Amino acid sequence: MLTTPAYAAADAASPLAPFTLQRREPGPREVLIDILYCGVCHSDIHQARDEWGGAIFPMVPGHEIVGRVTQVGAQVGAWKVGDTVGVGCFIDSCRQCPSCHAGEEQYCDFGMSATYNSYERDAEGRIDKSRPTYGGYSTRITVDEAYVVRIPDSIPLDRAAPLLCAGITTYSPLKHFGVKAGDRVAVVGLGGLGHMAVKLAVAMGAHVTVLSTSESKRGDALALGAQDFAATRDGQVFKTHAMRFDYIIDTASADHDYNAYLGLLKVDGTMVLLGIPEVPAPVAAGVLIRKRRRLAGSMIGGIRETQEMLDFCAAHGVASDIELIGIDRINEAYERMLKGDVRYRFVIDIASLRGAR
Amino acid sequence: MLTTPAYAAADAASPLAPFTLQRREPGPREVLIDILYCGVCHSDIHQARDEWGGAIFPMVPGHEIVGRVTQVGAQVGAWKVGDTVGVGCFIDSCRQCPSCHAGEEQYCDFGMSATYNSYERDAEGRIDKSRPTYGGYSTRITVDEAYVVRIPDSIPLDRAAPLLCAGITTYSPLKHFGVKAGDRVAVVGLGGLGHMAVKLAVAMGAHVTVLSTSESKRGDALALGAQDFAATRDGQVFKTHAMRFDYIIDTASADHDYNAYLGLLKVDGTMVLLGIPEVPAPVAAGVLIRKRRRLAGSMIGGIRETQEMLDFCAAHGVASDIELIGIDRINEAYERMLKGDVRYRFVIDIASLRGAR
Repeated sequence: MLTTPAYAAADAASPLAPFTLQRREPGPREVLIDILYCGVCHSDIHQARDEWGGAIFPMVPGHEIVGRVTQVGAQVGAWKVGDTVGVGCFIDSCRQCPSCHAGEEQYCDFGMSATYNSYERDAEGRIDKSRPTYGGYSTRITVDEAYVVRIPDSIPLDRAAPLLCAGITTYSPLKHFGVKAGDRVAVVGLGGLGHMAVKLAVAMGAHVTVLSTSESKRGDALALGAQDFAATRDGQVFKTHAMRFDYIIDTASADHDYNAYLGLLKVDGTMVLLGIPEVPAPVAAGVLIRKRRRLAGSMIGGIRETQEMLDFCAAHGVASDIELIGIDRINEAYERMLKGDVRYRFVIDIASLRGAR
Repeated sequence: MLTTPAYAAADAASPLAPFTLQRREPGPREVLIDILYCGVCHSDIHQARDEWGGAIFPMVPGHEIVGRVTQVGAQVGAWKVGDTVGVGCFIDSCRQCPSCHAGEEQYCDFGMSATYNSYERDAEGRIDKSRPTYGGYSTRITVDEAYVVRIPDSIPLDRAAPLLCAGITTYSPLKHFGVKAGDRVAVVGLGGLGHMAVKLAVAMGAHVTVLSTSESKRGDALALGAQDFAATRDGQVFKTHAMRFDYIIDTASADHDYNAYLGLLKVDGTMVLLGIPEVPAPVAAGVLIRKRRRLAGSMIGGIRETQEMLDFCAAHGVASDIELIGIDRINEAYERMLKGDVRYRFVIDIASLRGAR
């Protein structure tokens, strides 16, 4: 076993603190990765504080992992020592259901094995509750070669890390629901997900409008490449922008009125939910029926599509806007994220964790 | 002008009663139709009682019209005297917006001119509030040739009438959202719309399950061609049928829990709302996100698609199950419909209205 420095939450009430875990030597089809950077996702906070229930402690969060391959199993074909690779939100799935066969492992019928706060699987694909998964707030990780992606050379490694969750979570619905050049896309909310949705939709040639509660994000929205911005607080926008958009990418997890936003869609328009408000919001059937609108949801993306997204980002010069921090500032970062005080993603420099050893 | 016997509601509180209206001689591009049969849609009741607001009185309901062409304008190319034709939910639209150009007149940006309780348009396509529309509870109607469809010979004319609304309202979403042979389709509610959804989905080769509140409709569901039936009242079905369906066609307008039904969809499944419950129902984002599900709405269908639906029905031997009544029984029919006591559509034999003259 490989003794590995990490940061963990001991329970739902404790701040993250230094922790040591054991990674295994890579099996025949596994790779060992030295982690270089790990993005900090809002879901790290929800899980470390057990806000979704069922948390497994001690918990080492982190599912936006970028690193370098340092060891490969005897049967590994896709990777060699020195490759720069990424690991996203899951490290395994059943591999047998229709979704896994389709390369959409995130929708695995038996549930993906998340990169942390979850369990590894045995050789038959069954969940093994004796082996919890630990995430990227650590110096290395052992992963099956099929659940690893390549980071293209041209993307700065620290700015690549958030692509593994925030990037694919926004890229996947844009692609799946068919956004193309010239389409009018509204992005609701300008946080970690929203800023990636803007960059990616712009790179796809869409005409992008950011809808944000307040005027304060107008400058940032336009700087990120959006062609338009509208503040939603005064409600006037729901009249002036009625029936304007082909797509709405809704990243907001605060409560909001779905019907008001659905009214902004053209005939056959689609609104895709990425955030989960605490209270389910009422949907008026008539708003959908009158213009054949669609309300959909989307969750991260599969391994194949994550690689496609990374290659797309490299081709279009897209990367995340980040603030790089040492691991010792992680608890402060959580507090700032809760206030929306980050543009637009914290990324942990894992060198700081090696130094702490 | 052509003096025309009809039945009308004088106001929201009055029962329907004999009424006389004037139809115009057909213009150069219009046809005059002798009405033979008119189906009775639940929306006739809502509108005659002004339950949706904005009702125009006196009101002659009826938008499931089948009749015979008796006169054609000088420039009419598509129709000749003696043709058996249908008129559905609208008799005009702006003809200039993207939806009209796409042959999806029901989504006209400026609003379709409904067959009754609406207004005709002037030569420039503007709504003319001096000319209310009167529907099919009357012996004849003058309509623009472009808003008329052909009734194929093989469909009994009385059983064809409900296809003009109930038929197209269910055919359109089945086609638009891509139902194909082998797909698993659930139909929620077995009324006028639901019974057509079952017949049409079965004719498309789908495996159809009827979901109804009580066991009492099991026999009918299977007789209509459904392969399966499940009563929803005890709630167990939401566990046993979880993730089973590619599509749900939801015809229910009583309040119901959208999230429970959405949980019955597979990954990438679509639930299409056709009914409008009085109170908007809460939608939990997570139910959509976890399996990339879609909640959509659909409203009737365009002229082109209505013709396609009629031809499909002729080819597959599909027609509505009806109870034929004389016009003097229309108020009784309304009361029975409110109790769900019709299998599955009342159709007025308009000969009874001619006789009454």
